[in-house]
Amino acid sequence: MARDLDKIFKPRTIAMVGASNVPSKWGSFLLVNLMAGGFPRERIFPVNPREKSIHGIPAYPSVAELPETPDLAIITTPAHTVPGLLQECARRGITHVVVISSNFSEVGEEGARLERELVRVATDLGLTVVGPNTMGVVNAAHNLYAVGAPVQLRPGKISFVSQSGNVGANLLGWTMNQGIGFGKFVGSGNEALLQASDYMDYFGEDPETSLILAYLEGVDDGRKLMEVISRTSLGKPVIVIKSGRTEEGSRAAMSHTGSLAGSDEVYDAAFRQCGAVRADTSQEMLDLAKSFERLPLPAGDRLGIITLGGGWGVLATDATSMAGLRLAELDRDVTEVCDRLLPPFWSHGNPVDLVGNIYMETHLAILEAMAASPQVDAMVVLGSLGTGTIIGLNVLVSQNLIMEMSDDALKSFFTELKERNLNLLGRAKELMRTYGKPIVFVEMQFIGEENLRDLEAGETVIFTAPEKAAGILAKMLRYRRFLQRMGVDRAWANPG
Amino acid sequence: MARDLDKIFKPRTIAMVGASNVPSKWGSFLLVNLMAGGFPRERIFPVNPREKSIHGIPAYPSVAELPETPDLAIITTPAHTVPGLLQECARRGITHVVVISSNFSEVGEEGARLERELVRVATDLGLTVVGPNTMGVVNAAHNLYAVGAPVQLRPGKISFVSQSGNVGANLLGWTMNQGIGFGKFVGSGNEALLQASDYMDYFGEDPETSLILAYLEGVDDGRKLMEVISRTSLGKPVIVIKSGRTEEGSRAAMSHTGSLAGSDEVYDAAFRQCGAVRADTSQEMLDLAKSFERLPLPAGDRLGIITLGGGWGVLATDATSMAGLRLAELDRDVTEVCDRLLPPFWSHGNPVDLVGNIYMETHLAILEAMAASPQVDAMVVLGSLGTGTIIGLNVLVSQNLIMEMSDDALKSFFTELKERNLNLLGRAKELMRTYGKPIVFVEMQFIGEENLRDLEAGETVIFTAPEKAAGILAKMLRYRRFLQRMGVDRAWANPG
Repeated sequence: MARDLDKIFKPRTIAMVGASNVPSKWGSFLLVNLMAGGFPRERIFPVNPREKSIHGIPAYPSVAELPETPDLAIITTPAHTVPGLLQECARRGITHVVVISSNFSEVGEEGARLERELVRVATDLGLTVVGPNTMGVVNAAHNLYAVGAPVQLRPGKISFVSQSGNVGANLLGWTMNQGIGFGKFVGSGNEALLQASDYMDYFGEDPETSLILAYLEGVDDGRKLMEVISRTSLGKPVIVIKSGRTEEGSRAAMSHTGSLAGSDEVYDAAFRQCGAVRADTSQEMLDLAKSFERLPLPAGDRLGIITLGGGWGVLATDATSMAGLRLAELDRDVTEVCDRLLPPFWSHGNPVDLVGNIYMETHLAILEAMAASPQVDAMVVLGSLGTGTIIGLNVLVSQNLIMEMSDDALKSFFTELKERNLNLLGRAKELMRTYGKPIVFVEMQFIGEENLRDLEAGETVIFTAPEKAAGILAKMLRYRRFLQRMGVDRAWANPG
Repeated sequence: MARDLDKIFKPRTIAMVGASNVPSKWGSFLLVNLMAGGFPRERIFPVNPREKSIHGIPAYPSVAELPETPDLAIITTPAHTVPGLLQECARRGITHVVVISSNFSEVGEEGARLERELVRVATDLGLTVVGPNTMGVVNAAHNLYAVGAPVQLRPGKISFVSQSGNVGANLLGWTMNQGIGFGKFVGSGNEALLQASDYMDYFGEDPETSLILAYLEGVDDGRKLMEVISRTSLGKPVIVIKSGRTEEGSRAAMSHTGSLAGSDEVYDAAFRQCGAVRADTSQEMLDLAKSFERLPLPAGDRLGIITLGGGWGVLATDATSMAGLRLAELDRDVTEVCDRLLPPFWSHGNPVDLVGNIYMETHLAILEAMAASPQVDAMVVLGSLGTGTIIGLNVLVSQNLIMEMSDDALKSFFTELKERNLNLLGRAKELMRTYGKPIVFVEMQFIGEENLRDLEAGETVIFTAPEKAAGILAKMLRYRRFLQRMGVDRAWANPG
């Protein structure tokens, strides 16, 4: 049974202890982000003995004088004031506190002493404490942005605990850029009391969370972490970055959060055993997150590849082998479709080179034949989405030389191109539902990152390089095999 | 001595044999792209027996009837017509021909027979032939866009030969997005006569080329390729993608261009020996290209890291070790600067965590101390550029809640932010010139790909993840060591 952290992630009312009107202070950042995120201002109680109001909200001189007992207190005052404030909070009936304040164990002996005092006070009083030295807490569905970074997330069901506030905040920013839906975030800070595994356990039981991300530098209680992941992975994917992988990185982690990193091989073996999906980079973590959310899991290692250019097919084949996957054999049904729709000199094997065929219906017919084939576990489509752009641009340029094209005509041309691609992606989505096999798109064409995100529409996945597609599919397969081993096999990570 | 390919890359006049008014035909693409690229239309001679003019340019019924002998003929007509057309070209005095037409050896025995005929005819007549089955030729400085993709490049000194037209065209598109300057491009197609190594040799002696890229799938004459690279690498970096790395990829390459791929280990060893820089992915090839163009080469493996967040420092340290580099020791001069400018609990080691210090002058002072230190060979700066954005946005949001901000005020706010960053990057550039050591920036903040390219201004390098920075620096170091070994050591790949 996970600890009840509802008051941290879904507080009805919040006291902001140390709230400030000075724009460069954390007591201002936090309050401002909270307000900008839409948390009702009448349910925020700034505490500051020197101000009548903070950013327009009436302030209270002390925790004792709050008009009601808030669900959560967030503290941004200097470290030495924190133990005393925790006592004040407890006296006012507050049970859950987020300590943003830094200068604890991460800065030396005096800070470590203060942190031990914080632990003693909180334990004596039965307080549940996030931090200290944390970036804060987010719950997009609850309009809760009690965090030191100006983010506004697209609500979704991915939740994230980070042992580095900075890494966490940057990843949140990236999800905005990439149109990835997000649920809850917490920076676990120095983990004086609540540890990363506690949040993961809570997310594991949280019906609003379908996938868990964790950035870990070091773990004090490895056994507990692995127990939590083992249990959680059965129901939802747990994607982990464990940094401090090398000896030098591990020393850097120690100086950053004082945590012991442990041997990377040990972690790697433990993660595999308990079903965690390990991301190598922060960018890969996001690619994994969106792929697990949007695609079914491959049941085997056989990829079918469709490519609009032979060269990309070769690169994709290399990538397939390097990721530990195989090229699928094409069975007679697939071969017949290709024979019918492609010129006689088509590749007669996997990858299927479309030999410049630009008809979307051809791409789709081959894709559907592959999806239906018992020989194929997953599909990668290279270059299809860009076809329209490259051909279209050529035609456009040529027409521009002959006649002037009106702005409206240009606009409707690009609208048509986009609809053509949305149609392809939409039909791929249907194929994924029907056959329970993942289809990923790779687009090397210059249609721009923003346009790709727009085409994905939060429902399909478009990579910009074949290596990424193969690497992600390999990790999804590994998770599927974990589920099979544990007797809970299913095509979608989230049956919901 | 390289073959003289000036008439291919710098033709004064061009005959377009097979030029067409039908927008979906290659004979239209090529002509339209050529015109759109600014090649003077009075120096283009479309050849088409059925049309009076093509896209507004007077057409000639045959090569024989051309008004003068063009420097170059570009053929887009069906394969079976090509050998005859080569004879016509030779009769008209033409010496250089680009054969865009496909359906030669890549499509089976009948095509292979035609290709043998093409080789025989060309050899007999002493013609220099690009292709067949090529994407075409580009020379940005010459306004030559005789290519099947609608690209317009930023002129520069990077030249590129690709054995896949599609991979080539996509990479060209990416350089546009990323603001990378480009010189010459050629798709080598089936290489019936001119091989990739011939173009590389020509680029090697070309004063307008400072760096060479090659996408290779298979090589018929490995010894010649390695000789060319060995010779060329002494003067300018040669960055190579060799695909068909795995057994399966190598089979796919064979079916694509009919080339024998050979063992990857053999290639890898040979590339190392002759100084080629091997890129693992097409995206890395571009990252390498811009880094070699803009940064000095590290003389050793000791990185100094400055980071605005501890977590990113840990990730960067991992990345450093994994790339085979080391963390530099901080000598007394560096330590003293940090002691003076950072709070007493600063990391006292490398990476230097700025502990939230947002003053650009602090970042610069530490960076300069590192650049001057004999213990440091290269520097990575994490998070500095985003500081302004994150702090600024927080302040902005808070001010918006208090008072309305005018559009002008907002605009000038962002202008100031950008100037702050341009100042940092500009001073880093000076440090690189002064000390001959590379400085790369890593920005995980959500300032957007486009803004990053804008900040780079074609002169500095900003990565979005620490792994990329470390990987690129490691490959630059390997090239520097090659130069040292060969007795031609220098800090900049291109002394120009």
